[in-house]
Amino acid sequence: MRAVNIGLIGLGTVGSGVVRLIQKHHDEYVEHYGVDLCLKRTCSRSDAEAQRLGVIDTFTTDWHDVVSDPDIDIVIELIGGEHPATEIFEESFKAGKHVVSANKALLGRKMEHLASAAAERGVAIKCEAAAAGGIPVVNALEHNLIANETLTIAGIMNGTTNYILSRMEAEGSSFEDVLADAQAAGYAEADPTADVDGFDAASKIAILASIGFRTRITTDDVYMQGIRAISSIDMEMAKEFGYAIKLLAIARNTDEGVDVRVHPTMIPRNHLLASVSGAMNAVYVVGDAVGETMFYGAGAGSFPTASAVVGDVMALATPISQGRSPLPESEPFGHNLAIRNVSDLKSKFYIRLTVEDKLGVLAQATKIFADNEISISYISQYDTGDSDAKTLIYMTHQTREGGMEKAKTQLESLDLIREVASIIRIENIDAWTENVFAN
Amino acid sequence: MRAVNIGLIGLGTVGSGVVRLIQKHHDEYVEHYGVDLCLKRTCSRSDAEAQRLGVIDTFTTDWHDVVSDPDIDIVIELIGGEHPATEIFEESFKAGKHVVSANKALLGRKMEHLASAAAERGVAIKCEAAAAGGIPVVNALEHNLIANETLTIAGIMNGTTNYILSRMEAEGSSFEDVLADAQAAGYAEADPTADVDGFDAASKIAILASIGFRTRITTDDVYMQGIRAISSIDMEMAKEFGYAIKLLAIARNTDEGVDVRVHPTMIPRNHLLASVSGAMNAVYVVGDAVGETMFYGAGAGSFPTASAVVGDVMALATPISQGRSPLPESEPFGHNLAIRNVSDLKSKFYIRLTVEDKLGVLAQATKIFADNEISISYISQYDTGDSDAKTLIYMTHQTREGGMEKAKTQLESLDLIREVASIIRIENIDAWTENVFAN
Repeated sequence: MRAVNIGLIGLGTVGSGVVRLIQKHHDEYVEHYGVDLCLKRTCSRSDAEAQRLGVIDTFTTDWHDVVSDPDIDIVIELIGGEHPATEIFEESFKAGKHVVSANKALLGRKMEHLASAAAERGVAIKCEAAAAGGIPVVNALEHNLIANETLTIAGIMNGTTNYILSRMEAEGSSFEDVLADAQAAGYAEADPTADVDGFDAASKIAILASIGFRTRITTDDVYMQGIRAISSIDMEMAKEFGYAIKLLAIARNTDEGVDVRVHPTMIPRNHLLASVSGAMNAVYVVGDAVGETMFYGAGAGSFPTASAVVGDVMALATPISQGRSPLPESEPFGHNLAIRNVSDLKSKFYIRLTVEDKLGVLAQATKIFADNEISISYISQYDTGDSDAKTLIYMTHQTREGGMEKAKTQLESLDLIREVASIIRIENIDAWTENVFAN
Repeated sequence: MRAVNIGLIGLGTVGSGVVRLIQKHHDEYVEHYGVDLCLKRTCSRSDAEAQRLGVIDTFTTDWHDVVSDPDIDIVIELIGGEHPATEIFEESFKAGKHVVSANKALLGRKMEHLASAAAERGVAIKCEAAAAGGIPVVNALEHNLIANETLTIAGIMNGTTNYILSRMEAEGSSFEDVLADAQAAGYAEADPTADVDGFDAASKIAILASIGFRTRITTDDVYMQGIRAISSIDMEMAKEFGYAIKLLAIARNTDEGVDVRVHPTMIPRNHLLASVSGAMNAVYVVGDAVGETMFYGAGAGSFPTASAVVGDVMALATPISQGRSPLPESEPFGHNLAIRNVSDLKSKFYIRLTVEDKLGVLAQATKIFADNEISISYISQYDTGDSDAKTLIYMTHQTREGGMEKAKTQLESLDLIREVASIIRIENIDAWTENVFAN
């Protein structure tokens, strides 16, 4: 057994968790797995954290010192962002080092480029922590479930928005109030865009779908809609109809191409995903043989994310300790599947309109729905605080997205309609398990 | 790349699923993972299934033909039971072959012996399918979560009993009626003992706890109680108190030793495990770094279980294809932890008594509880169909199991008490996450 030398770049929340976890369990890793992890270099912009963690003797502010150290076997990149993270990956590969990373923004955009660069040098990228924090779903897709063709990957991949939606549902509060509260408590960032507008979940589903479907999918391929428009009325209506509202990231591997999107979704309240509350994450993976599986856990946090990072490190370090090179990961881009245009998809919809309380408004709306081949399954009218205005709630049958987009534009152009306040998809969950083998 | 030769012993439900899955995906495994699986020998008592599957040219009725074939790299053992399964393992190891198995009964009893025998010959045992069917939880414990110390493994590990309890809860039916129905529909065996009395779940938790805690735990170490005593009254009372009743298998790695047991359990209705219904399985794994995780999926069935078996085969076949031997699995018996006596554990209890409708019965019962240091948090009385008898329902505060056992014996000896009809533990779920690292 030889020691495996680690270079850690980034000493933020996750980086400090990695240092603390290795400090706590170093001796158990030696005893149980024959792996002697040696944190040889650490790197960050300031040395405050390295001081606090007692690793100042390994510290540098220059990442080049880490990737150019010939003794280092594995580089852990935890600084996030595109630069210099990209250069850290590339220089590490050139120096024959494996890279473990939690950088979802970068991997969501450049996984193909980076995977090719790693493969060229015969080294590995491992990124469990980039997709769902501590939940080992990347490993499930890359290894444990590979006997399957992956049909669907879908779930709750952003803790902040799930926390906000859970509280809105439990308390009947508005999005703005819960967000402000979450920001004050440190659960949401001062600039919440990456979370509430869906960017974070989009990066994660791009990574998971690329690995699960073995095709190139980038964050730009993901249709994206956030949760800002969800109101307490929508929450209440959803409950009445037996639904919960969740921000889901969904990727389906269909005969017509990959359907990949992030948006608020009504799902049946008795569905397991509806029971996932607070900041927790949960990812459904449907394989043609295994059928439905779900992986649940913390999607963020210092130690949970460090669990995934150090798990990846251990997977590489185990063969290295025995003087063997790790198996190269399978090339994730064997396929080049088309991305389906969201306009071609079909869904049921929930629609909330704020309208003038005048004769003719119903007739005008009804005509627009009919013109766009939208068949309505339910309609009801509610008072608003304003005596001149009413709320109209519609539920539709299965409808083409393109038709709904046109109808929305036409509804918005009507004088009698003040606002198309909310359009929420009602996900067809049965479609997730289409093509599962019958036993 | 060289072909990897498989010998498959057992062509029942799972065995035929394995054949069909390899037939369906052979070419994708070659294309995506560079693994050419060749089903070289199949073995069963009769050739009917081999005929049906189109593998009659590989068929033998003598398992020795499989393990003695020098070309075979991996033996898949799917016959179940202790003999000749044990001999198949041992002869395969002697011949330098790796073994993949779904044999929970055998592995629940003899894992230490078999793991040592495999390690001696430098070959591997893989048993994902033995613990929770298609759910990749063995891999999570052996690989993906190894950066953690595993604190708790707990969940629903038997589909038949979960199906029965789900229907009892939904329909208000009796255990006997649902069991008869399930037997008629093929969801339960003609002899349901292994499922309803907890043996199947006990084998699985013994396997998972051995791997997760790296210690020797056998099925005999598991305290076990089945679901036969659960009545529709208990289901209704549980609902009223905000609980669901599930047959849980629970293993906790505590400072006083391993607490490992299978029994019906009341858990809060808003807990994720309470939402797992029908024949599905779900396993909680709590690690000190990752915190709570849960793995959900089909615990049985031809293709789901085959997914786990072929996943294990692929993990071994990937290095073999590249001319390398698979990494030996880490020795699962590094620890030799004590097993806690169930009498020393503490729990809250739900107790249902059928009593004579006579003065003094309450006073007598109350005295017995007090004598055994059982503090009652709730009591209520209900009519039974019989005008001479009443139902008494108690809920207790945290109570030592030993005290409850004594109280049960004493209650049963009272003339005024017809029956101690039901005693159900109310699991202290917070204890599952004790010792998780604070972030």
